[in-house]
Amino acid sequence: MKAVLIVLDGLGDRRCKALNGLTPLQAASPTLLDRLAAEGETGLVDVVSPGVPNGSDTGHLALLGYDPYKYYTGRGPFEALGAGIELSPGDVALRCNFGTVDHSYVLIDRRAGRISSEEAEELASSISENEVEGVKVIFKHTVEHRGVVVLRGGGLSYRISNVDPHATGTVVSMPKPLDGSREARLTAEVLTRFLTEANKKLASHPVNVRRVQKGLPPANFILTRGAGVKPEIPSFESKYGLRGAVVAGGALYKGVCKAAGLDVIEVEGATGTVNTNLGGKVDATLEQLKSHDFILLHVKATDTLSHDKKPVEKVNMIRKVAQAFERLYKELPPNTHLALTGDHTTPSEIGDHRGDPVPLLIWGPEVRGDSVSMFNEIACSRGGLGRIRGVDVMPILANYIGALEMFGE
Amino acid sequence: MKAVLIVLDGLGDRRCKALNGLTPLQAASPTLLDRLAAEGETGLVDVVSPGVPNGSDTGHLALLGYDPYKYYTGRGPFEALGAGIELSPGDVALRCNFGTVDHSYVLIDRRAGRISSEEAEELASSISENEVEGVKVIFKHTVEHRGVVVLRGGGLSYRISNVDPHATGTVVSMPKPLDGSREARLTAEVLTRFLTEANKKLASHPVNVRRVQKGLPPANFILTRGAGVKPEIPSFESKYGLRGAVVAGGALYKGVCKAAGLDVIEVEGATGTVNTNLGGKVDATLEQLKSHDFILLHVKATDTLSHDKKPVEKVNMIRKVAQAFERLYKELPPNTHLALTGDHTTPSEIGDHRGDPVPLLIWGPEVRGDSVSMFNEIACSRGGLGRIRGVDVMPILANYIGALEMFGE
Repeated sequence: MKAVLIVLDGLGDRRCKALNGLTPLQAASPTLLDRLAAEGETGLVDVVSPGVPNGSDTGHLALLGYDPYKYYTGRGPFEALGAGIELSPGDVALRCNFGTVDHSYVLIDRRAGRISSEEAEELASSISENEVEGVKVIFKHTVEHRGVVVLRGGGLSYRISNVDPHATGTVVSMPKPLDGSREARLTAEVLTRFLTEANKKLASHPVNVRRVQKGLPPANFILTRGAGVKPEIPSFESKYGLRGAVVAGGALYKGVCKAAGLDVIEVEGATGTVNTNLGGKVDATLEQLKSHDFILLHVKATDTLSHDKKPVEKVNMIRKVAQAFERLYKELPPNTHLALTGDHTTPSEIGDHRGDPVPLLIWGPEVRGDSVSMFNEIACSRGGLGRIRGVDVMPILANYIGALEMFGE
Repeated sequence: MKAVLIVLDGLGDRRCKALNGLTPLQAASPTLLDRLAAEGETGLVDVVSPGVPNGSDTGHLALLGYDPYKYYTGRGPFEALGAGIELSPGDVALRCNFGTVDHSYVLIDRRAGRISSEEAEELASSISENEVEGVKVIFKHTVEHRGVVVLRGGGLSYRISNVDPHATGTVVSMPKPLDGSREARLTAEVLTRFLTEANKKLASHPVNVRRVQKGLPPANFILTRGAGVKPEIPSFESKYGLRGAVVAGGALYKGVCKAAGLDVIEVEGATGTVNTNLGGKVDATLEQLKSHDFILLHVKATDTLSHDKKPVEKVNMIRKVAQAFERLYKELPPNTHLALTGDHTTPSEIGDHRGDPVPLLIWGPEVRGDSVSMFNEIACSRGGLGRIRGVDVMPILANYIGALEMFGE
């Protein structure tokens, strides 16, 4: 037996005024998801810990069964892995945005006017390979304004502060060591030199000159955050005896899954954006089920619309996703189990992550079932799965498909 | 106040085709259990951990409040304790079956045609006491084809492989050390010599000569598994302040309870089989409640029928057990609390353990109650106890009867 775990990013929500007091899932009430809930089993998931708001990185680690409190250092290495950079022990990786600063380093725009992938790619090529004090500094652009920085060389540490202040109007502050170690000091120094030099190169780059002429914010600064090292975790296959793959657009999701040893499937047009190629993702999932036992299928757009405070658009996106997955449901190989959940709650009238649990459904021939017949935050609280932890989702799913070894006799 | 914890082995199940999509508990809907559920409180129990299929050994350890991840080494010592063998620190104990091998050591029958207790006992007496390389090797028969081996002497280890391959048609492989220690190597050597010599003695034993003449598989090989040492655990009485006893047929259940310091009550005709003396167990439970605060009352047959893939017979057995317990309910001393659950899920259309949670009910004057009025896997998921862990069952029950010390002031 096989299984597909669908993660709709930032799916969990709260009652929205714009939706007459319903959550986006309640307002959407998508036919497929309600049917799966009615035929399957439902529950609520505290993805990392009850009440604790979590990121997509810690959320996905937990959903794959890895305790993020044990294994997580920062988001950077997952972004780097997802961007196709192989990480070695000792490498420090950081997530970053192209941002806009003025001549006094005051932050004007955290996303450089949501610069296009094409322009960002052109800028990136001017700062991709660098060497500072014997440390190799690799910059790689991923999607839109996003990219990664990897520091490679002996004696580095991930214990350095974020440069991205997450708020405009403040002066960008260069990375500081977070402990008294030589390694943290060196890492902060090397990164500061790289960021300073990159700022100079980017400011005078033709792409930015053009943008300024058009009145657009120039992408003249690399805002780093989430320094971390690749976690040493037992492989997904060794934990569950399942050969797994991930179908996702965003680099982060590919990266977390890659760290766990899943195969990363590239899908044309799966961009991690609102206009992602949902049909292509369904095709890839069905295709990969021929050679894999487990697929993690990720959709980012639900979270993006939540951050943009667009509850109505989130409702529409949920419906669109559910409609696209009708074909996945119909063409699923026999005895394949489906699970669907979110990696965290992003209330779409707040625009930021919160620690409310997320709804979960598990559907398939081996599932006991319960009395819940709708898929949303309220209905699932009465489900047969009860209120569980993120790290328990994967063992529960693996149990249904008979993948787990017995403990004891 | 006192308490009885009834464990119906392998009680948890899934929807069965043979039962029109109901679980055996739903199909049985036994009057007593539904009444206790209606008057009491219900929930679901992840006996060792969500999704993780567990054995009866780890399951009973957890239900008594001992974390099996901390204390469990193997099933052998519990079988040995239950068979009445006193274990000392350093003793290595193994569970075993009489099996049938051909002249090339190919396994023909894992249970020697489910040989009778009488014949097995006669065979056992020929190999009960042995000495190999200064190590004492004790063999003791328990029920039907089952028995235990205890190795006693300095420098032994439980880190040796199972001999029982759990599948016929394969060559039986002698025990191997599982680590590089001297102790594991010595233990594997000693056991190998014992098994080889036992095979010779058994093959020519009159009981087996007769069996072969009758066309029955001879019980000519001892299939060992589950090597372990007696866990060093705080006594049940020291944990809960309760004097406890166990009423069970199977050696394993007696053994786990004995390891925790419970008194083992022998009941005439309590065999751990489908024809066990349920009335005798009820009598023993009522009698022992005069001198004990807590009784664990175990019935094995529900699991046996699940392993034999007999959902309809499981339904009948659940009804039979519930009927036999009507008298226990009626004659229970005032203020005695009853809990009823399983030690794991054994779906009776799969025939093997799975990690689905098991239903639990707790009934008694101090219980809060909930809105659930039936005792089955689906109804209990809406119960007031929620979804809890196996190690939490005993503290919850002990709390209701006012047995627990306060933590803090």
